[in-house]
Amino acid sequence: MPKQPVAIVFDTFGTVVDWRSSLIADLSAYGAAKNIKADWTALVDAWRAAYHPSMQRVRTGELPWTKLDDLHRASLDRLITDHGITGLTEADKVHINLGWHRLRGWPDSVPGLTRLKSRFIIGPLSNGNVSLLLNMAKFAGIPWDMIFGSDLFGHFKPDPETYLGVAKMLDLRPDQVMMGAAHNGDLAAARKCGLLTAFFPRPTEYGPHQVRDTKAEQDWDIVATNIEDMATQLGV
Amino acid sequence: MPKQPVAIVFDTFGTVVDWRSSLIADLSAYGAAKNIKADWTALVDAWRAAYHPSMQRVRTGELPWTKLDDLHRASLDRLITDHGITGLTEADKVHINLGWHRLRGWPDSVPGLTRLKSRFIIGPLSNGNVSLLLNMAKFAGIPWDMIFGSDLFGHFKPDPETYLGVAKMLDLRPDQVMMGAAHNGDLAAARKCGLLTAFFPRPTEYGPHQVRDTKAEQDWDIVATNIEDMATQLGV
Repeated sequence: MPKQPVAIVFDTFGTVVDWRSSLIADLSAYGAAKNIKADWTALVDAWRAAYHPSMQRVRTGELPWTKLDDLHRASLDRLITDHGITGLTEADKVHINLGWHRLRGWPDSVPGLTRLKSRFIIGPLSNGNVSLLLNMAKFAGIPWDMIFGSDLFGHFKPDPETYLGVAKMLDLRPDQVMMGAAHNGDLAAARKCGLLTAFFPRPTEYGPHQVRDTKAEQDWDIVATNIEDMATQLGV
Repeated sequence: MPKQPVAIVFDTFGTVVDWRSSLIADLSAYGAAKNIKADWTALVDAWRAAYHPSMQRVRTGELPWTKLDDLHRASLDRLITDHGITGLTEADKVHINLGWHRLRGWPDSVPGLTRLKSRFIIGPLSNGNVSLLLNMAKFAGIPWDMIFGSDLFGHFKPDPETYLGVAKMLDLRPDQVMMGAAHNGDLAAARKCGLLTAFFPRPTEYGPHQVRDTKAEQDWDIVATNIEDMATQLGV
């Protein structure tokens, strides 16, 4: 049996929700209904590619604290031009930007989290803001106990203020908190802060040609096939 | 049909949980098991009486920001002496102080909140800290979507930073948020900030001789008998 945490926090985009398939389906349906012509798959992939660079501008201090919704919107405005998408109203842009609030869980996510919730405190520890993560939870039926949005800490992962901020907010030692993620880099940063770690791969997060994060790159406290298997390994 | 909010936040001590009966029962059982002699009812009533004055010291700036668990502990240490309770270990004091994390809902609370959760975002907006409110939710089975502890805002109610902080964190206008409380004063402060309001009385919160907050003192948007009735009035 692995070490038992008191609380388990999860990376969210890719780890809990299938952002790519969800967003492509959501925007394709919207485009069809609104007669907006675009290569939505290309837009979604480019939008996600802008994610880390946009947060890095905040992490380095080039930008003041900016919540992810606003970073998403700035990237979207640029990509709409780059991709030659025309005829969008402001209401269309708002709706498209809030597509990140309308993501679906992987098939094991809600069942696995529901099992884990019976014994552990569970929450997202994501670069998303509270409103994004909360709207997503309501949309996808994710049973979080608490939403650890990055706006609570004024920092994006992998800044230590996020991982340690959860422990402090819960009055727990770092080793009483477990980070669950499909991304080795996120877990490496969490482990440096003293958290327990659980890895499970999401080999199609980035689509059919993904090469990153297909397997555990360290001896994480738990290596599982998905969240249901993680629950089984923790005995719930 | 009353105005429909997007999110409903609830005062917690007295409004959602029956702190007095819960704490008296919890501490009486602990005292009996540990052979600690005390008038637990008197201790609990005196402890609660210290609640508002201790927060007022933070609100006026006499004390820096101090979370409620720590204010509770400072009051407890003083009351143990005042009430002549002897023989307590540090572990006993920690356990007693965490009694505020082990409170039970009124009979209508969990059923009513479960109904409201099906349509609205629900959370506590309490002077308790996140860890207190989250542990209480796990203990009592309260199905919050998000925990708005006072430590998220660095302010206690009725400071406007708390009511407006919820709206801002959720990207909502104040009039898209409803405050539910058994305390007219809490609702008056929320209304001044532009929130919708819902009142229901808890006539035995302070015990059998309660005289305060037995009825609505303004034309709140909803006046209900309890949280289940509130859900009915909101059509869920």
